[in-house]
Amino acid sequence: MTSAAEPVPRLRSWWGWGYQDAHPDEAECLALGALLPGTLARPLPVPRVADLAVGRPAVTPPPSLARLVSGDPGDRAAHAMGKAYRDIARALRGRPGRIPDLVSRPTGDLEVADLLDWAGAHGVAVVPFGGGSSVVGGVEYRGDAHRAVLSLDLTSMDRVLEVDPTGRSARIQAGALGPVLEDQLRPHGLTLRHFPQSFEFSTLGGWLATRAGGHYATGHTRIDNFVQSLRVVTPAGTSTSWRLPASGAGPSPDRLFLGSEGTLGVITEAWMRVQERPRHKASAALAFTDFRRALDAVRAVAQTDLAPANCRLLDPGEALFSGASKDGSSVLVLGFESAHGPVDGRLAAAVELAREHGGRVAAGEEGAAGAGAAAEGAAGAGSGAVGAWRAAFLRMPYLRDGLARMGAVVETFETAATWDRIPALIEAVRAEVGAAARAAAGQPATVNCRLTHVYPDGAAPYFTVAVAGRPGDEVAVWDDIKAAATDVLHRHRATVTHHHAVGRDHRPGYDRQRPEPFALALRAAKGALDPHGILNPGVLLD
Amino acid sequence: MTSAAEPVPRLRSWWGWGYQDAHPDEAECLALGALLPGTLARPLPVPRVADLAVGRPAVTPPPSLARLVSGDPGDRAAHAMGKAYRDIARALRGRPGRIPDLVSRPTGDLEVADLLDWAGAHGVAVVPFGGGSSVVGGVEYRGDAHRAVLSLDLTSMDRVLEVDPTGRSARIQAGALGPVLEDQLRPHGLTLRHFPQSFEFSTLGGWLATRAGGHYATGHTRIDNFVQSLRVVTPAGTSTSWRLPASGAGPSPDRLFLGSEGTLGVITEAWMRVQERPRHKASAALAFTDFRRALDAVRAVAQTDLAPANCRLLDPGEALFSGASKDGSSVLVLGFESAHGPVDGRLAAAVELAREHGGRVAAGEEGAAGAGAAAEGAAGAGSGAVGAWRAAFLRMPYLRDGLARMGAVVETFETAATWDRIPALIEAVRAEVGAAARAAAGQPATVNCRLTHVYPDGAAPYFTVAVAGRPGDEVAVWDDIKAAATDVLHRHRATVTHHHAVGRDHRPGYDRQRPEPFALALRAAKGALDPHGILNPGVLLD
Repeated sequence: MTSAAEPVPRLRSWWGWGYQDAHPDEAECLALGALLPGTLARPLPVPRVADLAVGRPAVTPPPSLARLVSGDPGDRAAHAMGKAYRDIARALRGRPGRIPDLVSRPTGDLEVADLLDWAGAHGVAVVPFGGGSSVVGGVEYRGDAHRAVLSLDLTSMDRVLEVDPTGRSARIQAGALGPVLEDQLRPHGLTLRHFPQSFEFSTLGGWLATRAGGHYATGHTRIDNFVQSLRVVTPAGTSTSWRLPASGAGPSPDRLFLGSEGTLGVITEAWMRVQERPRHKASAALAFTDFRRALDAVRAVAQTDLAPANCRLLDPGEALFSGASKDGSSVLVLGFESAHGPVDGRLAAAVELAREHGGRVAAGEEGAAGAGAAAEGAAGAGSGAVGAWRAAFLRMPYLRDGLARMGAVVETFETAATWDRIPALIEAVRAEVGAAARAAAGQPATVNCRLTHVYPDGAAPYFTVAVAGRPGDEVAVWDDIKAAATDVLHRHRATVTHHHAVGRDHRPGYDRQRPEPFALALRAAKGALDPHGILNPGVLLD
Repeated sequence: MTSAAEPVPRLRSWWGWGYQDAHPDEAECLALGALLPGTLARPLPVPRVADLAVGRPAVTPPPSLARLVSGDPGDRAAHAMGKAYRDIARALRGRPGRIPDLVSRPTGDLEVADLLDWAGAHGVAVVPFGGGSSVVGGVEYRGDAHRAVLSLDLTSMDRVLEVDPTGRSARIQAGALGPVLEDQLRPHGLTLRHFPQSFEFSTLGGWLATRAGGHYATGHTRIDNFVQSLRVVTPAGTSTSWRLPASGAGPSPDRLFLGSEGTLGVITEAWMRVQERPRHKASAALAFTDFRRALDAVRAVAQTDLAPANCRLLDPGEALFSGASKDGSSVLVLGFESAHGPVDGRLAAAVELAREHGGRVAAGEEGAAGAGAAAEGAAGAGSGAVGAWRAAFLRMPYLRDGLARMGAVVETFETAATWDRIPALIEAVRAEVGAAARAAAGQPATVNCRLTHVYPDGAAPYFTVAVAGRPGDEVAVWDDIKAAATDVLHRHRATVTHHHAVGRDHRPGYDRQRPEPFALALRAAKGALDPHGILNPGVLLD
């Protein structure tokens, strides 16, 4: 029985961020372009699969696997790349990455294992694919060392299989997108509360394989800490760790697979620690004239045990772009939440600390409504600076694509460093990456910064670089910007990625950062688990 | 200039726990023996090195290394074993484990590397040795596949090399014993606050290599979480990870070495996250008639965000033995601490939760003094149940050795499991391990339990089994108890160790618990980093 009230599924874009119906229209593209000198007079057209040269698959799977596999050109094109700026630019210019020969959608571990067996025996590269939101070249194939490429789409494995209310944990399949798993946890009064910016378009498996960060500033942030056990299908067998609250039995098996980005095996499910839904929320926003003092304020808050859910510092450019401030101030957004008791006291203590460092609470910016919404991953508004930031946060990737259609190059990259290095690091990125962008594009460039995550010993700055590209050569401009960014981060001993992962785009920085003995160990582990070298070739290791 | 006021260093025992002057005297041994039916009439004599057959070293190091190496029989005997009951029993019966040929005390990374090079070239097994407090056979050599055995004692590398007050972190050499590193942090107003029961007799490197747990019940517990970066000398080169508050760049290099128990390399130093010393403390003790309800109370507290520093549940036997209760009640010890603000509100909320589950606050048991002391790793008393528990906690290993001299077999083992499994697990251990102890010894046995660490999703129970041994066959009785314990834990999917490590004694359980693909990866990593197989052979891997 089909109901007239059944919602029409929203269509995902094969080339750009998120939903097609949320893409900026031509007018919005033009308005975005007007923000950056030197952009195009008219937006580039929306790319069409029909214009791509999608060849025939180079391999045919055996009949036993045929029902799991699609050779549809649209399906294959949508699995050719992630959603980095570089990917968007290549799609807009009709030069996407290598299009996989086949897309498979297994429905269980045995089917994953069968696909790996077949791929290993036939020299077919396997690229695990969750929501496809990688911004680091994590889900495409580069090179030609394999006979064919199979995109392994996990999104048919999207069920919450078990819930343990006593230990507040849930067994969840890796292919569940954020809203899909939250919808299944909600009837139990539970939530994973992992809200990366890509929440709607990324999966549990992707979060685990890339060590994702949620948008909480402290505490409930890194997905790593909420793993109770993992199930990973490797070419050498299936690894299932025990459900344990903690263990000291040798190096953690789970921690080897967390961050392995599909190179050691395919994560198919995990028991995750979930929690009660928060009932108490409070938030505030403070303006700072002096960014350096704002940094000190953030550090002071991070070094207490107040544990804010949100502690996000926007520099003047970020604050202006998101509408959180119009007067050149930096803005600190503070939010607290708890399932157990009021958080007003913690908010008041954090605000007081921020005031001691020169923060000013704007009128109407303190209260219980704003941060509650800001701390929600899905819908939810807010008022004033908090609400403005919130709305901009979810809309940001769509705006990036609008800018890309106007010929702009927009690179976002994030890192983390200890507090002693943070001020000089941010200065150096602004100066050097800005200069590289200007030199590469021959146009004025902007570099904005926000702190997204804070720790007692350091912080995670997130940078946005925007400049009008050289028409047709946008990817070359991006390459120069990326090289400059990688170089600055390395010289300041700031990690090449805090939560976006390594993929293929961060390999130059990762290879220099990773201790060589660990590289030896990882390569050996890869050889043992993936003897045919079929799993996500080029990511992390060659 | 020697001052008359210079303190005389206390002498460590070569065979038993801790300091010689803290060992139970004959009268105390007799009193302990009286607690267990069937023990000896008189204590076994204190073993003497002079009675051991310590042979000549089978190898001679080159002149360049000679100054780092000792062949002194007393030194070698003190490095032959850790401090498990099994080790004490073997020493008392004059049958210690294999005595290492040489003991070396390097003073820096280059010397460690030189020693590994020499050992690798000459087939000499290297057993890294910190404080020597292993209770799992982690620091001895078993077998005969190597030409000789070198104990690598790190305690000459015991300095705090740098302190970063901005990011509250410190670079500390691995050979620093707990009090040694705390003494160096104190002038900076900082503390690592990692207080395992072995605090005085174990090192930072040992904690890292075994993934030690401090005695805090929640939050600041596992050493893993306080590592900013590690330096590890491996036969294949030295691994130095960057100082980072967090990173998403591939699998964590540090997490591979944490828990590697000396099999992949020698941890020589670490940047550790340290903290301000707490200024606010409060504690309470509650008695429960019903142990099951006490478990529910602990779970309720663990599933809030109250984060008690201490949340330790003693079953009636533990409470009686430690003097915390004499009426057959279970006792819950709660403690809170903060460097930033009062904790009375959190204590009150936790006490209220415990009361709702049937807990009764004993007179004089709630206040600011007790848990403060209870939460201090070094000296510090307390009053009532909290103080009694505290005093017994530090004295426990000494009492175990006194019981051992009376011919008793005392096994302590710990584990962790999810809450849904905890009640049945504890029941099964009491019944089955108790039965095994009675059967092996032909004497009545006691099995006591406490929860040492609690998590939202589970808890870590710690068991003490005591029974009079068969004179001369104490190790065989212990073997039977250990086999029964390992079997019960495995059937209940409770980890073979929560914080004692695997060593050699837990290999049977570990081998069954570890996912086979992870074993393949670990073996491959070991082969890459330790190609001659000299590092702590028999631990984790064959």
